[in-house]
Order: sequence, then structure tokens, then C-alpha cells
Amino acid sequence: MSRSILVLNGPNLNLLGTRESAVYGTETLADIERACTARAESLGLDVAFRQSNHEGELVDWIQEAGAAHAGLILNAGAFTHTSVAILDALRSLDIPVVEVHLSNIYRRESFRHNSYVAQAAVGTICGFGAYGYEMALDALARRLADSA
Amino acid sequence: MSRSILVLNGPNLNLLGTRESAVYGTETLADIERACTARAESLGLDVAFRQSNHEGELVDWIQEAGAAHAGLILNAGAFTHTSVAILDALRSLDIPVVEVHLSNIYRRESFRHNSYVAQAAVGTICGFGAYGYEMALDALARRLADSA
Amino acid sequence: MSRSILVLNGPNLNLLGTRESAVYGTETLADIERACTARAESLGLDVAFRQSNHEGELVDWIQEAGAAHAGLILNAGAFTHTSVAILDALRSLDIPVVEVHLSNIYRRESFRHNSYVAQAAVGTICGFGAYGYEMALDALARRLADSA
Amino acid sequence: MSRSILVLNGPNLNLLGTRESAVYGTETLADIERACTARAESLGLDVAFRQSNHEGELVDWIQEAGAAHAGLILNAGAFTHTSVAILDALRSLDIPVVEVHLSNIYRRESFRHNSYVAQAAVGTICGFGAYGYEMALDALARRLADSA
Amino acid sequence: MSRSILVLNGPNLNLLGTRESAVYGTETLADIERACTARAESLGLDVAFRQSNHEGELVDWIQEAGAAHAGLILNAGAFTHTSVAILDALRSLDIPVVEVHLSNIYRRESFRHNSYVAQAAVGTICGFGAYGYEMALDALARRLADSA
Amino acid sequence: MSRSILVLNGPNLNLLGTRESAVYGTETLADIERACTARAESLGLDVAFRQSNHEGELVDWIQEAGAAHAGLILNAGAFTHTSVAILDALRSLDIPVVEVHLSNIYRRESFRHNSYVAQAAVGTICGFGAYGYEMALDALARRLADSA
Amino acid sequence: MSRSILVLNGPNLNLLGTRESAVYGTETLADIERACTARAESLGLDVAFRQSNHEGELVDWIQEAGAAHAGLILNAGAFTHTSVAILDALRSLDIPVVEVHLSNIYRRESFRHNSYVAQAAVGTICGFGAYGYEMALDALARRLADSA
Amino acid sequence: MSRSILVLNGPNLNLLGTRESAVYGTETLADIERACTARAESLGLDVAFRQSNHEGELVDWIQEAGAAHAGLILNAGAFTHTSVAILDALRSLDIPVVEVHLSNIYRRESFRHNSYVAQAAVGTICGFGAYGYEMALDALARRLADSA
Amino acid sequence: MSRSILVLNGPNLNLLGTRESAVYGTETLADIERACTARAESLGLDVAFRQSNHEGELVDWIQEAGAAHAGLILNAGAFTHTSVAILDALRSLDIPVVEVHLSNIYRRESFRHNSYVAQAAVGTICGFGAYGYEMALDALARRLADSA
Amino acid sequence: MSRSILVLNGPNLNLLGTRESAVYGTETLADIERACTARAESLGLDVAFRQSNHEGELVDWIQEAGAAHAGLILNAGAFTHTSVAILDALRSLDIPVVEVHLSNIYRRESFRHNSYVAQAAVGTICGFGAYGYEMALDALARRLADSA
Amino acid sequence: MSRSILVLNGPNLNLLGTRESAVYGTETLADIERACTARAESLGLDVAFRQSNHEGELVDWIQEAGAAHAGLILNAGAFTHTSVAILDALRSLDIPVVEVHLSNIYRRESFRHNSYVAQAAVGTICGFGAYGYEMALDALARRLADSA
Amino acid sequence: MSRSILVLNGPNLNLLGTRESAVYGTETLADIERACTARAESLGLDVAFRQSNHEGELVDWIQEAGAAHAGLILNAGAFTHTSVAILDALRSLDIPVVEVHLSNIYRRESFRHNSYVAQAAVGTICGFGAYGYEMALDALARRLADSA
Repeated sequence: MSRSILVLNGPNLNLLGTRESAVYGTETLADIERACTARAESLGLDVAFRQSNHEGELVDWIQEAGAAHAGLILNAGAFTHTSVAILDALRSLDIPVVEVHLSNIYRRESFRHNSYVAQAAVGTICGFGAYGYEMALDALARRLADSA
Repeated sequence: MSRSILVLNGPNLNLLGTRESAVYGTETLADIERACTARAESLGLDVAFRQSNHEGELVDWIQEAGAAHAGLILNAGAFTHTSVAILDALRSLDIPVVEVHLSNIYRRESFRHNSYVAQAAVGTICGFGAYGYEMALDALARRLADSA
Repeated sequence: MSRSILVLNGPNLNLLGTRESAVYGTETLADIERACTARAESLGLDVAFRQSNHEGELVDWIQEAGAAHAGLILNAGAFTHTSVAILDALRSLDIPVVEVHLSNIYRRESFRHNSYVAQAAVGTICGFGAYGYEMALDALARRLADSA
Repeated sequence: MSRSILVLNGPNLNLLGTRESAVYGTETLADIERACTARAESLGLDVAFRQSNHEGELVDWIQEAGAAHAGLILNAGAFTHTSVAILDALRSLDIPVVEVHLSNIYRRESFRHNSYVAQAAVGTICGFGAYGYEMALDALARRLADSA
Repeated sequence: MSRSILVLNGPNLNLLGTRESAVYGTETLADIERACTARAESLGLDVAFRQSNHEGELVDWIQEAGAAHAGLILNAGAFTHTSVAILDALRSLDIPVVEVHLSNIYRRESFRHNSYVAQAAVGTICGFGAYGYEMALDALARRLADSA
Repeated sequence: MSRSILVLNGPNLNLLGTRESAVYGTETLADIERACTARAESLGLDVAFRQSNHEGELVDWIQEAGAAHAGLILNAGAFTHTSVAILDALRSLDIPVVEVHLSNIYRRESFRHNSYVAQAAVGTICGFGAYGYEMALDALARRLADSA
Repeated sequence: MSRSILVLNGPNLNLLGTRESAVYGTETLADIERACTARAESLGLDVAFRQSNHEGELVDWIQEAGAAHAGLILNAGAFTHTSVAILDALRSLDIPVVEVHLSNIYRRESFRHNSYVAQAAVGTICGFGAYGYEMALDALARRLADSA
Repeated sequence: MSRSILVLNGPNLNLLGTRESAVYGTETLADIERACTARAESLGLDVAFRQSNHEGELVDWIQEAGAAHAGLILNAGAFTHTSVAILDALRSLDIPVVEVHLSNIYRRESFRHNSYVAQAAVGTICGFGAYGYEMALDALARRLADSA
Repeated sequence: MSRSILVLNGPNLNLLGTRESAVYGTETLADIERACTARAESLGLDVAFRQSNHEGELVDWIQEAGAAHAGLILNAGAFTHTSVAILDALRSLDIPVVEVHLSNIYRRESFRHNSYVAQAAVGTICGFGAYGYEMALDALARRLADSA
Repeated sequence: MSRSILVLNGPNLNLLGTRESAVYGTETLADIERACTARAESLGLDVAFRQSNHEGELVDWIQEAGAAHAGLILNAGAFTHTSVAILDALRSLDIPVVEVHLSNIYRRESFRHNSYVAQAAVGTICGFGAYGYEMALDALARRLADSA
Repeated sequence: MSRSILVLNGPNLNLLGTRESAVYGTETLADIERACTARAESLGLDVAFRQSNHEGELVDWIQEAGAAHAGLILNAGAFTHTSVAILDALRSLDIPVVEVHLSNIYRRESFRHNSYVAQAAVGTICGFGAYGYEMALDALARRLADSA
Repeated sequence: MSRSILVLNGPNLNLLGTRESAVYGTETLADIERACTARAESLGLDVAFRQSNHEGELVDWIQEAGAAHAGLILNAGAFTHTSVAILDALRSLDIPVVEVHLSNIYRRESFRHNSYVAQAAVGTICGFGAYGYEMALDALARRLADSA
């Protein structure tokens, strides 16, 4: 069985660490990828890491995720709140999905309180910054071990 | 006058027949294309058949549809409920549009009850599975005959 | 097995073709009945055709439909949006129900956007005028053939 | 041209004057009919006066009203707030409709604040008790004179 | 003083026991009538038992109930949620009304949570199946004894 | 007892007949005043007629109305929908108030469907154009006769 | 199998009969307990009767009810409308729950129309005053007999 | 410091002047570009002008705008009302943004009344047709002069 | 044809520049009047400039504006959000109206998001501070030139 | 520093004590002024006391209050719930504002539950009748002493 | 007659002065108790002062308050917005209740705008910090004097 | 600095593992405590573990948590959705709070979608079952290390 985890990042996450550092911290997406790779290694997992500002591209990647990966970590950024297309793609997937957000979205504007992703996810981790990705890897490792 | 009908399919419809067959049946999009081609032939029509997970690509195709086709059959999938851009593109079109859904969207989650597509469509056919595409072709043939 | 289809029409549909022809066209309910009979014959089906302005009478007819008919085509008119009693009657029925509307109800006043009938129907056809009844017959014929 | 005015009364108005007189006064529907007849005579009009607790019967009568009458006065009682079927029947009518209510419905429960009848009426008279029917006759007489 | 109780049943309750028995049980309306008659006898009461799918007919019966009966038990079925006309008829009645539902309507679809009947009833009994009618008779007997 | 009726008109009604005649007709406020004076005379009443675009001035006049007049006819124009101050002034008045609108406000924008005036009025007359003022005088005359 | 029924009463019900007797009657909670004990005896049941103003204490008692009792009668008072904690406790229980209210809560303030208790109850009895508890005992006895 | 202004146009704006000219006028996007270039020149500014039907492409361009431009003029078309992703991209930008719409969006359908773009814009100009772009250039020139 | 533009300012705008300068800047209404006069001169226009805290006075001025002016620039301040009377006055005017706000009202409290003025205006300019008045003059000059 | 307190009263408060005494008591506004003067004297304060039914006049007075007074007590009557203009005027003021209401507005109609005044006031006192003004003076005296 | 006033404080008020002093000031609950005792003495009253974080305990105390006290001052803290149980307890009390809040709750989060306590209180005092308790004592002393 | 983490569990969590194991799994709260203790030890932390069904007791414990602990893990159960008192207590705390839920609350009933706890928490972890507690410990350990 695959030991690979796909980590998908949605719109504007490519800007992490370069702008609005007061809100999102100074770590870049590359820093997060490095941390995930290290954590995954210690858990006996592989990580594939991608970002796109295009909703359709994320739908494509989610559709294909089941063939090559054992789990999906998704930070869909702004699409979390507006994309029924991503929800439908997630529902057709038969590997576990963990939702991650850097900030606590429930303390921000009300239009960020609805999450379509949450309706298809095993669980949600939000508010722990970049470290939330490592927590998600940890949770998936545990889950894979349980179902092994 | 053109006898060609464009059939556009939105996000996740490329997965038809391979996943969630309990909900959507076992017919694939290729099966539907074949059935549409046969039905169109019997009605004296041609069919062009496309699918995309990208909202912008669908907008592009809708904008260009008027130049080459006599009618549009649109199953916009999840974009049905969220895309004002597709609605605007449909409104600039001067060929008839028929909306199709495989399932009865009015019996699913409440966020699927709103249809931007319906606001620009001649009519809506939903709940008849893959056969709904053939019904749409039939309705367009009738309409073309009436206005001939 | 019965080859008969019951076509029920709700309040004010008896006026078809005589008033508000700009909205509803010039075909009368008798014209529609003739077209349905012809189409049914070509599909190997019989058609029984009725209309009432009385909610209770429609409920009575729906309750009795299962004993003599193989399918029900229902254009409930204004009761579509207000009658829970018709919904309950439809739910007790074990033959397939197809909902038909002459106009696209989702482009009219907001109090016409809710359909109790849709919650018990196989599918909905709206916006194709009188021809929608023929499309409904076609869909039922297909369905009877599939389940034969 | 017809000089006859049809006065239709909806559910429970047959009880007028016999029950809840604190709210609705002590005049019976027969008293109102007598007053209307007298007033109509003085205005050179005839009056036909009916009541039903059945929504379908009211729809039937409204449909037929155009053939024999020059105007319609409608107190639809509780159906004012719930019957889209009556609204549709009124919209197919080409004689003027005046809405009457005995009490001021805008000072009662909130579910009585919506009026489907008002959406198809020339005007509304409410709160003047039985005398409101006479005011409605007066207004129709004026209108018929204006359009004569 | 009258010792007779009128038991009125609304739309689709004539189907009880013959369809959807998983939801509504296998007792027919005739079974319930027999049980009510027996229970009434043991309480020194008479029972008159009727059913109609017609809203207007129920309004007629409610209006006439005060002349011959000492209490009314009403299961208005789907009209519970939509009929202001029945509410108005109940308000003109001066005998006690008890509302009965076979199932617990507050655990079903949200459009069944509103009850116009409850606004004019002494009390409501729901969720106890056919036995709820006997409980209602019991409560009315008690009430008649108290006010005797 | 006073036989004088005060007729108050709110903002923009001074423009009547000079602008938007398609909506409001060609009669000016002076025409209406003349018609009211004539009708009042025939009913044995006097009429005082005023207009203001200032909410505070209307409140002043309403407060003073009880001392000199036997009834108030109020077309509050746009203040109908926004002025709680006018409602409070009306509530402190012990003469009957009749609300008049030229057009049927329930067929216009939704922000015109709420009426604070209606909450303190005996009744409402809307949709009969300038003639509505005469109907209001008629109703007040009847009422004064009844309570004499 | 246990023949004991637990009757739980929520906040302010200890005041019954001593205050607001116009609304709640003059029977005290002790009177109700006595009536329940007598009725239970005639039905071959035992009754344990408790009251608390503390939400947590009610949750504790509900959690423990399954070990010693065959059924639960719950009048949760004001907690009916606000306590998700009580709902969760009821859901973990495997004995039948009957909801009782002295007054008809659907005729009181709108914030009393929602019932969390109803979502976990077999049925609801409201509006019959103290006698509602006896009706609940009766219904539970019937139910125990049916499942014996 | 850069004197270049980026003008971005969203979905369907490429159709300007060729369709629905009754609503949007006969000027094409190329005409607007020419007018902007001329106006910019007179203000001592450069203009870069782009259009896309793809939300992701617009997000990409907005992210990159800060590096090469002194200001952004954005007509996001239908994405104005649905794209949180564009809002997030705008928030990461440190050059001033001016929102432009050809028509007065607050006079169109209600789903066009919400603007995510407005939440990150210096100001909004709507309803002036193609001339609004020139007004936006003028306002940015003024702003650049003020902050110089 | 008149070359005069009326600039009307609503409640509290007389305080501009003397209080809350952090929000509204340090320019006074007299400064804005001077800037408007200069700009108007360069455009070949005259300007009349007024302010009032009284809704009725603004309605009076708007009614009279058509007789002497070729265009109206309106900053209605707080009345923007509450005055249907001003909307009605604007609707009776046959010269173009441009709405101006100093701040971006769509970024302030939600009760400032609705604008009655916008429903009768050619266009809206908000968020550009005092300079917005000059932009409005510019847009009106353009419009007058076009329709000359 | 000024020791003068301005007490402003809004629409209809001039009627106090002469009408609706069941609701508002028998004290007139002159009585309240006398009580305030006496209380103020005992606290070492002066009082200026005014009333207007005109929103614009209240805005004028609030704007000027800062120049001559050390505090403002405002009972805005019905304008409390509708006037954004008064809120804006209060926000431009740099002396403390205390909101007073004679009755407990949170127990009256729902349209009286919103208070624009409260959004700019130090605190609110409601339900204590005329004595609430004295409490407000007391609170302002305390506050002035604290900040002295 | 009792001259004792009970002052009840709800959840988290025991923390006053020790945390979040920027919001709630530096006075502790003990300081407030001392101030109340002094003020009460000067008014000829006694004070009993309690705090609890437990809703049930507050309900108990309110129920018992009528036996020993002449008035109740209640700052229910967070329970103000959520506890129907406290409202019911207050309604069974026949001594006057005054609601106090340290801060102006109508300027905080929207879930703090509803007050169940206000529905049973004579009046409300909010926004005056600790001094509000003294104002409440003053108001109760006045009220007791009036009713003596 | 303290190395102790307080883990608080709200109503009904004491039942874990003994009931509704299909939803919540078979681990008991004691199992979770053991797992937390082991995980904490490996992270160099101590754990204090408590549960209560009483809202007031949880408020007490939260208030005291800051004195002895370095972090708080809170699964407030049903109080998550209803307790403003717990939110207020959390806001007065100056140690980090992590919210944990066993199930994905955003996939359950809508009344469970609001979380008062989330408004005061660093972050939220839901849907990972008992393992979520260990993830929370991990996140707090990381945070303590970062701020050391």
C-alpha cells in the first residue's frame, strides 16, 4: 500500500512568509514543505507538495490523488468557503482527507466560517500555523497504522 | 443553419461511472457521448462533446459556442450553484441553452437548490440520469424544427 | 403489467390557451391531451388525462393512481409550492412520478421556487411548454423498459 | 356591457355575526349581502354574492367570473395568505379585482401580513368592517364609469 | 350535555396501515376507530369518526362540530402545517380541541415543525402512534369531568 | 362635536400630477383637495388639507389634530415605511385615522411593504388613486354617524 | 425487568402551585407526585420523582436512569429550549423518554417553540396541566406491555 | 517609482461591445484600452491592460502586480461577487486598488450587491460605463501625486 | 441649457474638517466648495453648494433642482441609508444624479451598506475623500457633452 | 470647565403626562424639567432642557452641544431606532452622552430593540420613568468628578 | 416591610478587578460590595451580596429572594443572554428587579444584544461600571418610597 | 514555569466508550487520560484530567487554571455551542487554550456548528477521535518550547 501523502495548497498560499507576516508568520511554503518532508520521514511516509491558484487545477489533482497516495492534506485557502466543485471531488475520493488552516478561521470574517471542505474531511486542524501540517501528517500516520 | 449541438460538462463529471456508482449509475461520460451521438444522428443533428474542471475554460467555450453551434446542453456540475461568471457568459449567447442534471438537485443539500444556469436556460431536465441528455437533444431538435 | 400513464393537471391549467397566451402559449389542455395520446401510442402506452382546481380531488386521484397506472405525470400548478398534502399522497405511491411545468418556474417569483412535488418525483422537466409532457412520456417509457 | 359585480367570500366567513362578534361585529353575511344589494342598486349595479370554504370552488368561480361580471370583490379570508392557486386564477381574469378585509390584517399575527390576493388586485380596503364591501362597490362603480 | 366526541382525520390518513407501514404501523384507520369506540365506551363517551382529503370539507365539519359534540380530536395530517383556514375554523369553536399526530412531527422535516392547529388546541399529543387517540379521549373525559 | 376632517400628505406628494404621471396619474394635489372638499360637503363634513416634506412638521400636526378635528386621513408617503415617530404621534391621538395610498404599495418594492401607519390606523385604502381620499372621507362619515 | 419510572422536573417547577397559579394552576409538585404514585400503582408501576434547578444535576440523573428504571418522564422546563447537554444525555439512554409540558408551549413566546428534548423523545404531551404526567405514565405502561 | 497602472478585467468583459449592447454600450474592450492609454499619457502614466475568464489567472496577475505597477484598476466582473481568492490576493498587495464597474451593480440582481473587491479597494466607481476607467486613472494619478 | 450643477450635502457634513479628521480628513466643506468651483470653472460649469441636517429641507431642494440645474451631486450622509423620502424625490427628477461618499461605505458598519440614493443615481463614487466631488463634476461634464 | 448639562428630548415627548398616562405616567415634561433642575442644583450642575419633533433640529443641537455643555442626556424617543444622522452627530461630540428611556424598550415591539443612540453613549438607563433623568444627572456628576 | 436588597452577580464577576482591567476597570467585587453597603446605609437600606458561576444556584437564590428581600439587583453576566431558566425564576418573583451591566452590552458582540433578564426587569442600567450598582440601589429606594 | 496541562471535559464525556460506541468509539475517558499521561510524559509535561456535567463547575475550573497550569485543553461537549459563560471565563485566562472534539462537529446537526470556545482558542482539532487529545498536547508542547 502507498505510503505517500499529498499536500495540496490553494490560492495565495504561495505568498506565505513574504507578505502579511503579522498574520501568517514568516515561514514560506518552502519552509513548510521542508518541515513536512522531515516529519514524514520520521513517520515512515513520503510527501508530495503542490500549490495552485486555480480551482480547476486543484480539482484535477484531487481526482488523481486516490491512484498514487494514501492520504490527502488540504489547505484550500479561500476556496474552502466557496468551492462546491472541490467538495464534489473530495467526495469521490476514497483516501482520508485532513483539512488544515494556518489561522483560526472561526475568529475571522463571517464569510470564512463556512467550510465545504470540512463536509468531506476526517477532521480539521486550525490555528496552529505551519505546525498544523505536521499535526496532520501525524494524524494520518496514526490512522494508516490503525487501518493496516 | 448549423445542425450542431454543443454538450458541455462541468467539474467532476469526467469521473462518471468510475466512482460513486450508487448515486450516479455505472455509465461513463464516454457512454453518454455515444448515446448522444446516436440519438443526435436519428434527429438529424451533430454533437460536440466536452468536459472541463476549470470554470474559466467553460466560460471560454460558452462564449465561442454561438459561432459554430445551434444549441447548448449544459451540465455545469457544482458550478451550477456558484458561478455568476457562467451565467453572464450564457446571457451573452443567442442560441438556446438546456440545463441537465443527472440527479434531482432539488432533493439534495440546500446549497444545491440555487441554479445560476436556470436563470439563462430555456428549460431544465433533472433526475433522469444519463437519459436526460437524450431528452435535451430531443427538446432542442423540436425547438429548431419549430423555429425553422 | 399496466401500460397506462395518468397525467394529472392542477389548478388553472384548464384555462390554458384561452388566457395569458403570451406566457403559456396558445395550445389548450385538449391539444396537449391529443399530443400525449399520439405520443403514448407510438411508445406503446395508454394515457388517462385529468384536471382539477381542488387540492383534495388531486389527493384522491393520486392515492388511487397506483392501482390502475404504471406511472404518473403531474403538473400541480400552484399547488406545487404550497401542498404538503399532495407530497404525502405522492410518497405513498409506488409508481414513478415525473414533475412537469410549462414555464421555467425557477425564473419566476421567489414563492414559486420551492417545489414539494420535486421531493417525491423521479425527475423534473420545466420550461419546454406543452412539449414537456411528451418528454415526460418518453422518460417513463424508457424507465418502464429498463425495469421490465 | 355587464353591470354585475361578483362578491366572493372565503373560508369561515359564513360564520360572521354568529361567533367571535367581539372581533368581527354582529353583522351576518346575509346582512352584508343586503347592504351590498342596496348600495349596488343606488349605483346602478347588480350584485351576485357567494361564499365557500373550499379553495377549489373559489378558483372555479374566479375563472368563470369574467364571462358574466364587470368586477370582482374578493374577501378570501385565510386563503389570502396561503393560496397561490387563487392568485393564478385572478391573474387570468380581465375584470378589475378589489380586495376586502373586515379587520386590519396588518395589526394581526405576522402570518396574515402577506397577501397573494393583493398582488393581483387593483386596490385593497381593510379595517372598515362590513362597510368595506360598500366602499369596494363604490370604487368599482367609479372605475366602470371612468372606463365607459 | 353532549357526551359525543368528534374525531377528524385529514389528508392521506385513509391510507393508514396499507402503505408505508414501516413509518406509520400496520393499524388501519378502521382499527383506530374500533379502539376509540371501545375506549370511549369505557369512559362513558360516544365517538363520531371521519376522514377527508379536502381542506374545505374539514372546515365545514369543524364549523358544525360545536352543535353536536362535546369535544374535538383532530389529526389534520399535512394541513396541520399549511392551513390557516382550519385554524380560523377552530378559533370559532367553543368546545375543547386536542391535537394528535401518530409520529413525532418535531423529528421530521422542518416544514412539519410549524403547527397552525396547536395555536387553537388545548394540548398536543404526538409520537404515540394509534394509541395517541385513546390518550386524547382520556384527556377529554377528564376535562369534561372537571368542568361538569 | 367637530365635523372637521384633517387630510395630511407626506413627502413628495406636492409633486402629484406634474411628474411621473404614468404612475401617479395627472391629478394634482389641488385637484384632490377640491374633490375632497366637494365630497365632504355632501357628507356634511369640513376638510382641512395640508402637505409637508418634513417628518417633524407632520408629527406636530398630528399631535394637534385631536383638538380641532374629528378624524384624520393620512397619506404619509415614504414616511409610511420608516417613521416610528409618526406612529408614536398617531398612537397618542384619540380620533380615528384612515391610511390612504394612491398606488397599491404591496405590488411595489419590498421596502414599501411595511407600514408603521397601519399599526395605528382604523383601516387602509390603497390602489384607488385620488379617489381613495373620497373613499376615506366616506368611511369616516359612516364611522362618525355610527358613534354619534 | 424494572417496573420503575423516573419522573424528572427541571428549573422552577418546585414553585408550582405557589406562584403564578393563573398560568400553572394550583396543584403543587407534591400533588402531582401523589397523583403519579396512585396512577402508577393502578398500572403496576413504581415512580421515582425528582426536581432540580441545576442543568448538570439533571444530566447526572438522566445518565444514571438507565440502570434502575424502565422509562423516563421529563419536564425539563426552561432547559427544554436551551440545553444541548440534556439532549446528548437523553441520546445515550436506552429506555423510552416521554416529554411533558404543563402548558401548550407552542402558544407561548417564540423562544419556547424549539425543543431539544423532543429530538430524543418517543412522544410529547403538552397543554394538559398536571394530568399530562398521568397520560405519560399510561403511555409508558402501554409501551412496556407491548414490548414485554 | 513606477508610473505604470495595471488594468485587469474579469470574465466576459472580452465580449464588450459585441453583445448585449443595450446594457453595456457599443464600446469594445479595445476601445476602452485606447481611451485609457490616451488618458494615462495626459496624466504622465503608463497602462498595462489585460483580461481573463480564469479566476486563477487573475489571482496570479494580482499577486505579481506589486512588483511592476504603481496602482491597480480592477473590474472583476462576476468574480466581484463570488471570489474570496481575489480578495485575499488584493489584501497581500501594497499598491492602491480602484474598483470599476460599467453598470451600477446596486441596481441589478441582489446577488450582485455584495462585492468582495470593495473590501480591499481604496474606492469604487460604478455606473459611468467605459468612462469609469478614465475616472479611476484620474483618481490614481491624484493619489500618486499626493503621496509623492 | 443650464450649465449649473447643484451639490447637496446631508447631515453632519457641515462638521467636516473640524472633527474626526482621522476618518474624514482635514478639509472643510468650504474647502470642498472652493475646489468644486475651480474644477467646475475649468469644465465650463457653475456650481451651487448647500448643506442641511434636515431631511425635509433636502427633499425640498431636490424637488426644485430640476428647474435651475443640469445635474445633481448628492452626498446624503446618514440619510443615504434611511430615507425613502429622498429616494422618491430623486425619482421625480429628470436631471442626472451622481452619488458621492467621502469614505468607502461598504467597509463600514453593515447598516451603512444599503443605499437608497444608489437606486436613483447614474453612478456612485466612494472612498476618494473630497476629491470624489471633483470626479463627479468631471463625470457630469462628460455626460452633458455626450447628450448635447 | 462647564458645569452645564444639556437634556434633549425627541419626538412626542412634549405630550408626556397629557396622553397615554397608563404607559408613561402623569408627569409632564415640565415636571421632569423641574425635577432635573432641583437635582442638578444639589449636584452643583446647571441644566438646559429642550424638546423637538424634528430630527434635523436635534442634529443641530447635538452638534452645538460640545461648545457650551459638559454632558448630554438624550431621550431620542422614536428616533432612537431609526436615526443614523443622530448617531453620526453624537460620534462627533467629545462630551459624555447618557441615553435615557422612560419605559423598558427591550420589553416593547421588536422594532424598538435596536438603538443607534446606544452605539455612541457611555451608558443607558431605561425603565425607571421620569426618575431615570435624575439617575442620568447623578451618573454624569460622578463622571465629571472622576475626570476632574 | 423588608428594607433589604439582594444583589446577585453571575458567572465570572468574581474575577472583577483582577483580570481584563482595561475592559472592566480595577475595582473588585469586594470594592463594589463595600460601595453598595455604604450607599444602602445612606438610603436606609440593607444589602445582601452574592456571586455564583452556577446557573442553578442563581435560580435557587432568585426563587428564595421574595421571602427576605424588598428588591433584587441582578447582573447575570453571560447568563443574561442564554438563560430562560433565570427568566422564569424572575417571573415568579413579586419584588422589583433591576438589571445592571458594567459595560454597554449593546456595543459588544451581537450575541450579547439579547437579554432574557430585561424581559422581567423594571429597568436596565448599563455602561456606568461599578457605579451602576449604586444607581440601581438609588432607583429601588425611590421605588420603595413611592409604593410605601 | 509550570509544565502542567489541564485537560477539561464537559457534559456526557464521562459516558465515553460505554454507550453509542458506533459514534464515539470504544475508548473510555480513563483510556484517554492514560494516553494523555503517557504522551505528556514523553513531551516532558504533566497532565491534570477532569470532567463535569456542570457548566458552573467548568467555569470555576477554567478561572483557576491560570494559577497552576501552562495550558488548557478543552472539550466542552454540548456547552461548546451554548455557553457564553465559558467563553467569558476563557477570555480572562492568560494561558493558551486548545479546543478538541472527538467527532467532526461541522458534519453534524446545524446547532453544533457554532462554537463559542473557538472564539477564545488558539486553535481547534476535531474529528480525530481520542487521538485529538494527544495532538493537542503536542501542539501545546511545541508552543511552550517556542515561547520559552
